[in-house]
Amino acid sequence: MTSQTIRVELGTRSYDILIGEGLLAQAGERIAAVLPGARVALVTDENVARIHLETVSASLERAGIGVTTVVVPAGEASKKFDRLQEVVETVVGARLERGDAVVALGGGVIGDLAGFAAAIVRRGMRFVQIPTTLLAQVDSSVGGKTGINSRHGKNLVGAFYQPQLVLAATDALDTLPRREFAAGYAEVAKYGLIGDAAFFAWLEANWQDVFSGGPARTEAIARSCQAKADTVAADERETGERALLNLGHTFGHALEAACGYDADRLVHGEGVAIGTALAHRFSVELGLCPAEDAERVERHLQAVGLPTRISDIPGGPLSADELMTHIGQDKKVKRGRLTFILTHGIGRSFIADDVSPERVRDFLQRELST
Amino acid sequence: MTSQTIRVELGTRSYDILIGEGLLAQAGERIAAVLPGARVALVTDENVARIHLETVSASLERAGIGVTTVVVPAGEASKKFDRLQEVVETVVGARLERGDAVVALGGGVIGDLAGFAAAIVRRGMRFVQIPTTLLAQVDSSVGGKTGINSRHGKNLVGAFYQPQLVLAATDALDTLPRREFAAGYAEVAKYGLIGDAAFFAWLEANWQDVFSGGPARTEAIARSCQAKADTVAADERETGERALLNLGHTFGHALEAACGYDADRLVHGEGVAIGTALAHRFSVELGLCPAEDAERVERHLQAVGLPTRISDIPGGPLSADELMTHIGQDKKVKRGRLTFILTHGIGRSFIADDVSPERVRDFLQRELST
Ligand SMILES: NC(=O)c1ccc[n+]([C@@H]2O[C@H](COP(=O)([O-])OP(=O)(O)OC[C@H]3O[C@@H](n4cnc5c(N)ncnc54)[C@H](O)[C@@H]3O)[C@@H](O)[C@H]2O)c1
Ligand SMILES: NC(=O)c1ccc[n+]([C@@H]2O[C@H](COP(=O)([O-])OP(=O)(O)OC[C@H]3O[C@@H](n4cnc5c(N)ncnc54)[C@H](O)[C@@H]3O)[C@@H](O)[C@H]2O)c1
Ligand SMILES: [Zn+2]
Ligand SMILES: [Zn+2]
Repeated sequence: MTSQTIRVELGTRSYDILIGEGLLAQAGERIAAVLPGARVALVTDENVARIHLETVSASLERAGIGVTTVVVPAGEASKKFDRLQEVVETVVGARLERGDAVVALGGGVIGDLAGFAAAIVRRGMRFVQIPTTLLAQVDSSVGGKTGINSRHGKNLVGAFYQPQLVLAATDALDTLPRREFAAGYAEVAKYGLIGDAAFFAWLEANWQDVFSGGPARTEAIARSCQAKADTVAADERETGERALLNLGHTFGHALEAACGYDADRLVHGEGVAIGTALAHRFSVELGLCPAEDAERVERHLQAVGLPTRISDIPGGPLSADELMTHIGQDKKVKRGRLTFILTHGIGRSFIADDVSPERVRDFLQRELST
Repeated sequence: MTSQTIRVELGTRSYDILIGEGLLAQAGERIAAVLPGARVALVTDENVARIHLETVSASLERAGIGVTTVVVPAGEASKKFDRLQEVVETVVGARLERGDAVVALGGGVIGDLAGFAAAIVRRGMRFVQIPTTLLAQVDSSVGGKTGINSRHGKNLVGAFYQPQLVLAATDALDTLPRREFAAGYAEVAKYGLIGDAAFFAWLEANWQDVFSGGPARTEAIARSCQAKADTVAADERETGERALLNLGHTFGHALEAACGYDADRLVHGEGVAIGTALAHRFSVELGLCPAEDAERVERHLQAVGLPTRISDIPGGPLSADELMTHIGQDKKVKRGRLTFILTHGIGRSFIADDVSPERVRDFLQRELST
């Protein structure tokens, strides 16, 4: 069994990400080692509860850890105030104290919701992530962003809050629907595209092994976590370079919003895949990036089964105006000018903070008419 | 016009507290100096809106600052999830960005609610406090604790979040009901009792001038802010010495809870006054504190019109069991043992973290039967 440890260096808030097989059944001992004596509130969703809760609960019990479990409905709709209140009141009602932990067992939705609850109960409890989607393992569980959605947009309410431990059980992904796995893979490819052309080339050669499990999957997850951890360590609060991680995300978020966050139409990683392809094509159009690189990106994303065109999204057609409205509400806006992550080619992304809204609209208009 | 500036030293999060007359009418220029170009969401309550909103709004307008105003009902009941959501959605809906500010204009309720909203909108906006009660000026606006109440207890949900500026307009207190002024005064006296016997003696001699306004009031507020700022700078996240600020508060919170947070029966500072008297009498009973000191404390609190006995609270009688239940839910509990701030005498408080629940119950029983 392959397993790797990545240390996220954040001074007194440093922590380990363990990546490998069999970690769900080791959750109890691993948590007890880091947080001796802590009780936990285990937050999960209905899908994950059905498949993996028993394994984790049994492990916690074996380690003598007292557990209160909160199961919320699966899906993005759980990232909202009412659900946050429910989790918070359950944690407080269980009389957990600051030294006790909230444990997130699930995808990014659960990590974001439970992490935010951990951040605000008693102004900060301990927090452990057990991400069970590829997206959560390589992205949302690393970096300390937690939160919920506002009526006015996604992730507009939350906290920066670091966990004490992340357990990325790679074999927990065996039960993930292929579509969700591919969605998470969009974030994996993103790390190569931002700043590591060799990793992207490795993925082009090895993606089938990553999808089927074993050492290549562990390797891809570890390299992704390392890339994100390095970026976060350099810029925890996203005042600079961390923004590179938003490659594909300004377009992606707008697409998700325009689809009303309807997972039947588009899940986050699919939005990122289309957004990444758009960011490359937009960079080509601006004369910044070679056309071959954009084509290579599109080919790879398509090979793994990801959408790359707005027209790949099922359901009614989207409008450029609607997408622009969502882009304007996106949190990467600074005093009226648009900030986008653009690229000079594979592995050479950069932050452009003065993109003209008109150029973006024109570009989207053309994309929509093809 | 006397005015003083206290610098709260917290590294990159350091900020100034300005204390003096006329600051409401200077709010715009003062905020613009610290946060040039920022727009603001002004959060206040119905009482304060009636009396002071016009002055502050006009000042912001003169300084060219765009304002969105949120007025919530006055009173503790506004420190809850629904109201937080309302404030947050209003701020987000006004499209304020991270560099824009939430401004709290009001007492501790508004400061706690608005500060928490500032902490979580976009994972942290700028924040300015304009405290308009004595309690808020000397206590809640200093130190960065923000939050709301849970169904299970007070202040159990929140964030540590520092403002960029505090404007303590001492003349804004002229419109404060005398009862509220006295309640805030309990916190002023507390600073003397914790660690500054000379300040307590000064208050015994000068309290009437503090109540009537002018230089003595500014002086008392400045010394109180300085005492709290020093403690917070030494221990921002309350892992140690900051707990001393809870003198009178474990009892006080239990009394407030037992009264159902009914302001007609007991406001926070009155709970603190009784709690402080109780902490001194309990310390005498434990052989830790001279009886004369406890009597002197009680005499002074009574002189300014504060309650010092549980039986001073109007309405039905309270029970020791009920108070103990609330003490057990208080956040100063660590793994079953009670932490209390006790005292060796005036100006000599200390943290006792192994107080036996039985002794506390016996003590309360006797207090209740006198
Ligand atoms: N905090 C961050 O830095 C960050 C970064 C990226 C994304 N996000 C957030 O993450 C969320 C998306 O995360 P996600 O894609 O993991 O979504 P998700 O949590 O909704 O999980 C996707 C689906 O997979 C199911 N599932 C999870 N684990 C499973 C397993 N092992 N087997 C079978 N089914 C399983 C879930 O029940 C759900 O139906 C979004 O809300 C996004 O905003 C946050
Ligand atoms: N964050 C902290 O560190 C901290 C510390 C202590 C207390 N608190 C919190 O503070 C709250 C109590 O604060 P408070 O006593 O200021 O209560 P408050 O905010 O309810 O104000 C008391 C009353 O005075 C009115 N008022 C305010 N300013 C006025 C003015 N200038 N003129 C006339 N009326 C005015 C208000 O409308 C209200 O009715 C509690 O919720 C407590 O938990 C927080
Ligand atoms: Zn993403
Ligand atoms: Zn207080």
